[in-house]
Amino acid sequence: MADVVLGENRYGKAEVRIVAVSRDGGWHRLKDLNVSISLAGDFAATHLTGDNTGVLPTDTQKNTVYAFAKEHGIGEIEAFGLRLARHFVDGHEQTRLCRVRIEQYGWDRIPVQGGPAPHSFLRTGPETRTAEVSVAAGGAELVVSGVSGLVVLNSTGSEFHGFHQDRYTTLPETSDRVLATEVSARWRHQSNHQPNQQPNQQPDQHADWQTSFVETRRHLLEAFAETYSLSLQQTLYAMGERAIRQREEIAEIRLALPNRHHFLVDLAPFGLTNENEVFYASDRPYGLIEGTVRRAGVADSDLAW
Amino acid sequence: MADVVLGENRYGKAEVRIVAVSRDGGWHRLKDLNVSISLAGDFAATHLTGDNTGVLPTDTQKNTVYAFAKEHGIGEIEAFGLRLARHFVDGHEQTRLCRVRIEQYGWDRIPVQGGPAPHSFLRTGPETRTAEVSVAAGGAELVVSGVSGLVVLNSTGSEFHGFHQDRYTTLPETSDRVLATEVSARWRHQSNHQPNQQPNQQPDQHADWQTSFVETRRHLLEAFAETYSLSLQQTLYAMGERAIRQREEIAEIRLALPNRHHFLVDLAPFGLTNENEVFYASDRPYGLIEGTVRRAGVADSDLAW
Amino acid sequence: MADVVLGENRYGKAEVRIVAVSRDGGWHRLKDLNVSISLAGDFAATHLTGDNTGVLPTDTQKNTVYAFAKEHGIGEIEAFGLRLARHFVDGHEQTRLCRVRIEQYGWDRIPVQGGPAPHSFLRTGPETRTAEVSVAAGGAELVVSGVSGLVVLNSTGSEFHGFHQDRYTTLPETSDRVLATEVSARWRHQSNHQPNQQPNQQPDQHADWQTSFVETRRHLLEAFAETYSLSLQQTLYAMGERAIRQREEIAEIRLALPNRHHFLVDLAPFGLTNENEVFYASDRPYGLIEGTVRRAGVADSDLAW
Amino acid sequence: MADVVLGENRYGKAEVRIVAVSRDGGWHRLKDLNVSISLAGDFAATHLTGDNTGVLPTDTQKNTVYAFAKEHGIGEIEAFGLRLARHFVDGHEQTRLCRVRIEQYGWDRIPVQGGPAPHSFLRTGPETRTAEVSVAAGGAELVVSGVSGLVVLNSTGSEFHGFHQDRYTTLPETSDRVLATEVSARWRHQSNHQPNQQPNQQPDQHADWQTSFVETRRHLLEAFAETYSLSLQQTLYAMGERAIRQREEIAEIRLALPNRHHFLVDLAPFGLTNENEVFYASDRPYGLIEGTVRRAGVADSDLAW
Repeated sequence: MADVVLGENRYGKAEVRIVAVSRDGGWHRLKDLNVSISLAGDFAATHLTGDNTGVLPTDTQKNTVYAFAKEHGIGEIEAFGLRLARHFVDGHEQTRLCRVRIEQYGWDRIPVQGGPAPHSFLRTGPETRTAEVSVAAGGAELVVSGVSGLVVLNSTGSEFHGFHQDRYTTLPETSDRVLATEVSARWRHQSNHQPNQQPNQQPDQHADWQTSFVETRRHLLEAFAETYSLSLQQTLYAMGERAIRQREEIAEIRLALPNRHHFLVDLAPFGLTNENEVFYASDRPYGLIEGTVRRAGVADSDLAW
Repeated sequence: MADVVLGENRYGKAEVRIVAVSRDGGWHRLKDLNVSISLAGDFAATHLTGDNTGVLPTDTQKNTVYAFAKEHGIGEIEAFGLRLARHFVDGHEQTRLCRVRIEQYGWDRIPVQGGPAPHSFLRTGPETRTAEVSVAAGGAELVVSGVSGLVVLNSTGSEFHGFHQDRYTTLPETSDRVLATEVSARWRHQSNHQPNQQPNQQPDQHADWQTSFVETRRHLLEAFAETYSLSLQQTLYAMGERAIRQREEIAEIRLALPNRHHFLVDLAPFGLTNENEVFYASDRPYGLIEGTVRRAGVADSDLAW
Repeated sequence: MADVVLGENRYGKAEVRIVAVSRDGGWHRLKDLNVSISLAGDFAATHLTGDNTGVLPTDTQKNTVYAFAKEHGIGEIEAFGLRLARHFVDGHEQTRLCRVRIEQYGWDRIPVQGGPAPHSFLRTGPETRTAEVSVAAGGAELVVSGVSGLVVLNSTGSEFHGFHQDRYTTLPETSDRVLATEVSARWRHQSNHQPNQQPNQQPDQHADWQTSFVETRRHLLEAFAETYSLSLQQTLYAMGERAIRQREEIAEIRLALPNRHHFLVDLAPFGLTNENEVFYASDRPYGLIEGTVRRAGVADSDLAW
Repeated sequence: MADVVLGENRYGKAEVRIVAVSRDGGWHRLKDLNVSISLAGDFAATHLTGDNTGVLPTDTQKNTVYAFAKEHGIGEIEAFGLRLARHFVDGHEQTRLCRVRIEQYGWDRIPVQGGPAPHSFLRTGPETRTAEVSVAAGGAELVVSGVSGLVVLNSTGSEFHGFHQDRYTTLPETSDRVLATEVSARWRHQSNHQPNQQPNQQPDQHADWQTSFVETRRHLLEAFAETYSLSLQQTLYAMGERAIRQREEIAEIRLALPNRHHFLVDLAPFGLTNENEVFYASDRPYGLIEGTVRRAGVADSDLAW
């Protein structure tokens, strides 16, 4: 009979939806998060015999998210993730590695006659700010910030030609096309550039995560807009390079850029020209360009991803 | 044997995705639409015998959307819808009623160092501007503008109590709750207040649809924010009433407001209070409040919906 | 100042997800439903002044679904919907019309060595059985059964030609195409053919709803498969006609058939033929064919839809 | 200035939707696939300078899927993936690693009076059969088969107790609960047990992929149904162990099992008991249990995943 062994495993609570309201008199602030936790470590017993002695229920993990929001506030999602991850690694012997992934949904204030409303909000989007925090027993910590659902489009300044052709190539070359994508970007922070976030400090005392996110997002957008593109790969690299050159806290950045094709509609049958004016926005299939850009000399890290 | 008859029927092309770029030198503008067309009329032959003599293919309808974008420009979606609907009613004998439904996705310019980028764009959302246009043979026309996916939240200023109770009622009364909803609103324009949009005029000459949309949306948001709410129904009515009082071109408005429940998390088991600070955002089930608000004396219209 | 009036309105709880297990010894049966309720009637007070005296909370409606499942069992979804709708109309003075919409998800038993497992189940799909029940104060009742998500495809036996052509027509005629659609069908039962379902009877005593659904679904599928089609409209009518001729309990049936286009891929550039062998399955845009087929002489009913 | 380097990267065409019809006289067979391709290798030039000399367009990759379906037939998806992946690695110098991921949607024949229809089909689901094939320059090949969307439920035979408790634990222990999950399973084939699939052979000559899939799926389902469960982890391991013990071609299997919580509804406020009869099926949050089960002594493989 085959010998069978348990390999890598992890478990946790996914998609804990929390909305937290903080008040400064009648002036409210909103945090709207989707928190997912996973624990890895010594969980062989429950797999092999159903002995749950070492299993912290996922329900407890959910409770902890809500309780921590009250006890410590949420602050920036990287800090909240670190606090949660440290708690599970420090407080639960079987957990050797905790990962916390957080999505943050954006809200603006509703503008009313007298200015921004004090406690009325309007959802922005579709983009989502993300954080993925990994904390290992022994103290190693890694933080990955990111953004997803950032849909961008250049209506000119993009070419695609000179490519390899084989028997199955029919794509015409183009010197002017629409380039559109939905940016998913995740950047790993250098350990020595992380804000010094101690568990007993208030997350809100550290504004660096917020600045880092806002500035990195800005550089990604600017690089997308300012890069004259000969391929989506070139644009990807330019975005990553810009982020790393401009933000010294970033060790590496991973980008996934689906090529949201906009095909020029053939209007000739109707006696009409189409000089890059009318496009069909296609859903599937799509090109998918994925790449990592790294700061030279920075060590790789399996822990972070 | 039963006698069987064909009842109401319609057909058309749904979800034609068109992105149109217009240029003012290097300064580009973007329209991103999802267009659905339906034709009703004398289509018994194709149903009963497969005789397609009177059937204009849905593929042709799709082509017409793209061709019209080039020939006439898109302009405001209400005008574009009218132009398309008139074309099918006027040009296709079997069509007695054409409805065009358009969703418009929002795009901002990407901000770069020198200001807004000339041809680089960032998708906004999640809200969508909508238009539904109905044109009947004989000349009757109705235009319904709208917005969907407008997610709003008041973090205070909402109560719910004094309700009817029966054997199955367990809901506690509350004098302070989070009120959140995803607004779907559609408002029918009065016929005599529609911009005088002739088929041979340029849609862009008429800015009224744009102003009407922007202002109605603003009034809906302000009414949501400013209404102290004893029920989501009261908020719905206040929103509709505001729109009708403020915008004389509106005959009636239909609102669908799912109650996106935010439940207060019970933190007592952890020795913590929760004074409307930490909420669980629930997906299902949800309350769904739907209602119409009308200008008094305005005739109802089955044609529009 | 404009006079403003409240028009049609309704409210209720949507998407109550209930899974009920009934036992016959160790042999379990499963019902998996998504129940949505709406109440219409005299609800002006809550809209105009926030007076909730007449408002039965949507939370109570949810509770009632769960309680009724225990008190009365679920049985067939038409019967469960009737029981719920009658309860709200009979027990809540302000409610003049209650509509209950139910989706039922399918489950099979997992086959194990000894045959079908007694309490282990496998989700089927993607199709969903539906029911929409309307009960008005005064006793009028209407039941609409249906199915959605029924995806079907004929790989031959479908033509499309002889259609109207205008300036924008480019579609080639075809005498052999793939015809695929996702059937949404809803059929209204004749009042005098409804199983005589009294509130104080057990729903399970009446098997007719089950038979009616299974047989109508079968006839729809057979008509789709057996109809040589010159247009999707012809197929739609054939399906409706079949259902009405075969099932005397059906007064009318409404079908919505999106034309899931399967485009023949042009393989000529690669020196290959394509004799209806290789297709690209397109997502958008799609044709949408909607139609009603009625039993002659049967009165229309606004109440049902 | 920071030195910046390009890290791991890949690109390809995602979600090529292909439906292929093969004929045996009037008896048709259907394959309905969603194919995604990615190429990794020497693609620095296009990233760094926009030099596309070595870039095979994703459009060509799409064309190749359609052309190969005609030239070679599809056969089993593992074989089709291998054929595609070998083609790109062998025929395109820059590609050092090609991964092909395929989803296959299920179709049954529509039953008609005379038995199964010859060319009319009904979509099954929601489950999807999957394959992920990796081919490296130099000849290494790995095949991962799988299934996703397999939703299963045990209505009894599941307990959860004896777990670790901390300050935030409130979950009651249970000795009888509903256990439901949506199985995502991917199993890596041992290299020496792969069917000997040569590029110039017909995929259909090798029935082993089909048998392997059908049998592995059966063992997973049986293990789910037959395992008396003290934790979802125990069920996961039992499923993986069963697959490996029963199917000698499997080297390892990775399972992701979201715990689709079914919460017992508290009916006590209505004077009713609830002996595991009425449940609320919750969407979010959910437990997520992930684990790998391996054949002892089998080498790990980074290439496959």
